[in-house]
Amino acid sequence: MDDARRPGRPRDAARDEAILKAARAVLVDEGYAGLSMEKVAAAAGVGKPTVYRRWSSKASLVGDAVLHSFLAAVPGFGPPGPHDAGTTQQLTAWFRAYAASVRDPHHAAMIRALVAAAAESPHDAEALYKQRTHAQYTAILSCLRAGVADGEFRADADLEAVADALIGSVLYQLLTGTEHEAPRRAGHLLDILLAGLRRT
Amino acid sequence: MDDARRPGRPRDAARDEAILKAARAVLVDEGYAGLSMEKVAAAAGVGKPTVYRRWSSKASLVGDAVLHSFLAAVPGFGPPGPHDAGTTQQLTAWFRAYAASVRDPHHAAMIRALVAAAAESPHDAEALYKQRTHAQYTAILSCLRAGVADGEFRADADLEAVADALIGSVLYQLLTGTEHEAPRRAGHLLDILLAGLRRT
Repeated sequence: MDDARRPGRPRDAARDEAILKAARAVLVDEGYAGLSMEKVAAAAGVGKPTVYRRWSSKASLVGDAVLHSFLAAVPGFGPPGPHDAGTTQQLTAWFRAYAASVRDPHHAAMIRALVAAAAESPHDAEALYKQRTHAQYTAILSCLRAGVADGEFRADADLEAVADALIGSVLYQLLTGTEHEAPRRAGHLLDILLAGLRRT
Repeated sequence: MDDARRPGRPRDAARDEAILKAARAVLVDEGYAGLSMEKVAAAAGVGKPTVYRRWSSKASLVGDAVLHSFLAAVPGFGPPGPHDAGTTQQLTAWFRAYAASVRDPHHAAMIRALVAAAAESPHDAEALYKQRTHAQYTAILSCLRAGVADGEFRADADLEAVADALIGSVLYQLLTGTEHEAPRRAGHLLDILLAGLRRT
C-alpha cells in the first residue's frame, strides 16, 4: 500500500491492513451474513470505533477487504498487458484464469461477499461493485476493442454486452453453486462468443 | 396458492401470503439490508414467532417472497411454451422480456434481494437461487436444445455455458447499476451468441 510508505502514517496503514485482513478471514469462515463490525474489530485487535472511523458500513469495509485481496491474486483483474499475444489468446488466458480462480473457496467467498454487499445496498451498487470491478471490465473491453481494431471482430458488435456476459456467467455459476463447472464452461462460452464476434 | 383451497388451512395460507406480501414491500422500500423478521412481522400484523415458525431465516423468507412475485410477473420465467415459433424467436422473446423486466424498480429490487440472499449464505446458494431459478434455466436450455435438434445450432455447443451467460449478463447489469442498458444489450448479446451457435 502506498499509505504505508507515507511519512507519519505507517501505524494507520498497518492498522487498516490488519482490519482488512481480519475482515477477509471472517468472510472466508462465516460469509457476508456472519460478518459484523464487532467481529472484525475483535479479530484485528482494535476497538469497534476504530473500524467505524475508517469504514462507515459493513458493505464499504467488505468492498475494500475484497478488492485488496483480489488485485494481487486474480490474473487479468488489473489493467490489460501489452496487446502482443493477439486478442483471442489474451482474452482466453484472462477468462480461463478468472474462471479457474473461483474454484478456490477463498476467492469464491470474496466474490460472493462483494456481490452480497452490492446486492444488499442497491444505492451503493455502482460504487461498491462497478467502480471496484472497473479495472477488470476495462481490461476486457480494451481487449475486445483491439480485436475490432485488428479487423478480427465485427466493428458493429456490442462489446459491453460481451463483457457483461463473460463476467456475469461466472457470477451466475457462483450464485448457483456450479463454480466447479466454471473453467470448462468459460472455454466453451468464449469459443461461441468469439465465433459470433468474428467478421464473416 | 393450493394451500388456500385445502380444508382447515385457509387461515394459515392467508397469513403466509400476508407475510410474503409484507416482505416484498419491505424489500422494495429498504432493500435486503433493511429487511428484518421483526419489520416483516409488524408490517404483516403478526408476531415474530409466527414468521419464524414458517421461515427459519431471512434468506429463506426472501427466497419465497421473491419467487411468489416473480412467477406471475416475469415472462419466460416459467416453463417454455410450445416450440412452434422457432428457437430464435422464442429465445429472443424471452430474453428481451426478461431484460426489460429489470428496468422496473420493483423487479430489480426482487432480483437483487434474491442475489443478496444467495450471496450472503453460500451454503444455501444452491437451494436459494439455483433451485428457485430452475424453471427459468430449464426453459432456456430446453429452447437451446430444440435449436440443436432442429439442426440450427451446432450439436457440440455447450448450452449450459450459453444459459449462464444470458442470465448472468443481466445479473451483472443489476449489480453495476446498468440495468437501463439491459434491453438493448440483451438483443445484441443474443445476436452474437446465436451467430456463434449456428452451424457453419
